Amino acid sequence: MSTMKPIFDAYHQRQAALEATYSTNPYAKGIAYISNEIVPLHSAYIPLLDQGFLKGDLTYDVASAWNGRFFRLDDHLSRLERSCQKMRYRIPISQEEMKRITISMLAKSGIKDAYICYMVTRGLERISNTPLGKKAEELSNTLYIWISPYVWVMSPAAQMDGSGSSVITRTVRRTPPGAFDPTVKNLQWGDFTRGLMEAADRGAIYPFLTDGDGNLTEGAGYNVCVVKDGVLFTPDRGVLEGVTRKSVLEVARKVGMEVRVEVVPVELVDRADEIFMCTTAGGVMPITSLDGQEIGSGKVGEWTAKIWDGYWAAHEHPDLSEDINYAADSGRLKL
Amino acid sequence: MSTMKPIFDAYHQRQAALEATYSTNPYAKGIAYISNEIVPLHSAYIPLLDQGFLKGDLTYDVASAWNGRFFRLDDHLSRLERSCQKMRYRIPISQEEMKRITISMLAKSGIKDAYICYMVTRGLERISNTPLGKKAEELSNTLYIWISPYVWVMSPAAQMDGSGSSVITRTVRRTPPGAFDPTVKNLQWGDFTRGLMEAADRGAIYPFLTDGDGNLTEGAGYNVCVVKDGVLFTPDRGVLEGVTRKSVLEVARKVGMEVRVEVVPVELVDRADEIFMCTTAGGVMPITSLDGQEIGSGKVGEWTAKIWDGYWAAHEHPDLSEDINYAADSGRLKL
Repeated sequence: MSTMKPIFDAYHQRQAALEATYSTNPYAKGIAYISNEIVPLHSAYIPLLDQGFLKGDLTYDVASAWNGRFFRLDDHLSRLERSCQKMRYRIPISQEEMKRITISMLAKSGIKDAYICYMVTRGLERISNTPLGKKAEELSNTLYIWISPYVWVMSPAAQMDGSGSSVITRTVRRTPPGAFDPTVKNLQWGDFTRGLMEAADRGAIYPFLTDGDGNLTEGAGYNVCVVKDGVLFTPDRGVLEGVTRKSVLEVARKVGMEVRVEVVPVELVDRADEIFMCTTAGGVMPITSLDGQEIGSGKVGEWTAKIWDGYWAAHEHPDLSEDINYAADSGRLKL
Repeated sequence: MSTMKPIFDAYHQRQAALEATYSTNPYAKGIAYISNEIVPLHSAYIPLLDQGFLKGDLTYDVASAWNGRFFRLDDHLSRLERSCQKMRYRIPISQEEMKRITISMLAKSGIKDAYICYMVTRGLERISNTPLGKKAEELSNTLYIWISPYVWVMSPAAQMDGSGSSVITRTVRRTPPGAFDPTVKNLQWGDFTRGLMEAADRGAIYPFLTDGDGNLTEGAGYNVCVVKDGVLFTPDRGVLEGVTRKSVLEVARKVGMEVRVEVVPVELVDRADEIFMCTTAGGVMPITSLDGQEIGSGKVGEWTAKIWDGYWAAHEHPDLSEDINYAADSGRLKL
């Protein structure tokens, strides 16, 4: 984790520069694309009757920009497309157009380190199989895009001091794939919300949910990785196929770890040498206690540190990231 | 079902009278209460950043008015309160105030047969257990109320001609209570949405989901009741504790049926004499085919018909319903 301080220092400088524009640029705190219009995020409204709200009938994906560069944007847009296919949504515009709009929004907002959320909802009409109703695939779907300054599921300060605490929940299990396929990124967070409440009740920050049969799944918006004897384990099912997880696995192999994507029994988590979480909104996030007990030394582990460095280094790699043109013409959108 | 025709005839007359006001009263097609303002339903917007949208972090309840009378409103408001307690939401106003606003909205809209939806969301900030974040119970929650003309999960025409078809889903199971407690009325409808798609693929209208262990649970917004040898069966767990179901059980006992609220194996559903669904948005809805096979005679069953009559008769009963004052003063709201 030798690169952590310089990376966070540079980020904090960029963030301070962004904040200096908050009073003059109404889009700098966040920006949204709704019905082909661009609005400040905190003034963005959606129809009450949107089925994404009224039935949770939506999918989404979260990409990021870091230091003015997209990181694996195509991976996120491809996954969104797969989620849509599984739930029979059609994104109303092309990926190319989505990317063009995203660039315009980043340019307009000046946000260099960004949380970029794409949401596709069923639209304004509900699914009905009755003779006068419309079936899922007959409805017009809605795309929302919104961008905010980068979101940290674990703050830089907590990553630095290694204060991430966790519990394996026992009041709630993860929704099983047979009820809802977790590879379709979704906002049916009831199980995660219960998990967050249990973690708080037990004096911890981050919940990890099981599959109800004694195996680890994932947490409230993040995959979980466990290191034991130099091997990295992460669950193969009952979880989102994380883009950050993909980066983590690539880095782990590069630094010489064996990687196993398979069933991860809770017992293995209890005996872990190191644990970390990963997600686009925060990156690689070290966990140093589980159920009130220290993990390993109780400090950020050495493998976790190596993966942290490799993950953030990848953000500058030309195969995985691309420069954003902040001078892009955003003329076609109503601004 | 001797009362079906007169009840629907009277309803259609009231609905025609309402529709005659659509061009002059902007609230007659629906009305919403958001941030202490009243707006036409189709112009109602909620903040994009509402956690009810961004995390499905909400509960709700649906009550009804029928022929200008509330039906079991207190049962619905009490259940909403219980849902809120389980998920640590606090409704920002009292039940009395909610009722007062509802009456104002009905008065303003002139809707005599109404679908009345109360939604309580976590609000604009997300749950975070981090030192600078706010825990679930520390956040300010939001109440939305919206009303539309009565919604029919099964149309009057289909109830009359007994054309309700169903399937037991096999591509999807109901989310188990250990992942999310279904007695907390929620909009995490991913499993129901998949069920609706499977039903359509299989040429049917209504999906019934199982618990994944061969037992019936519920469908996309309705409880399911099965009649066998004059006994009424409905599942005791893994389902919403329906207010309409409660009415149905009361009527069933009154007409001399034995009622069993217990585990209902799918095998029993396959051998049913009669099946019907029940929900506030549609009442008692006869199902005459299951998985492509006729149920019993393939016509609306005699017990179902008796319960239908008793259910709608209860809407005039002074212990269960109350007259709405359509001349109520709605002065305190911004209209």
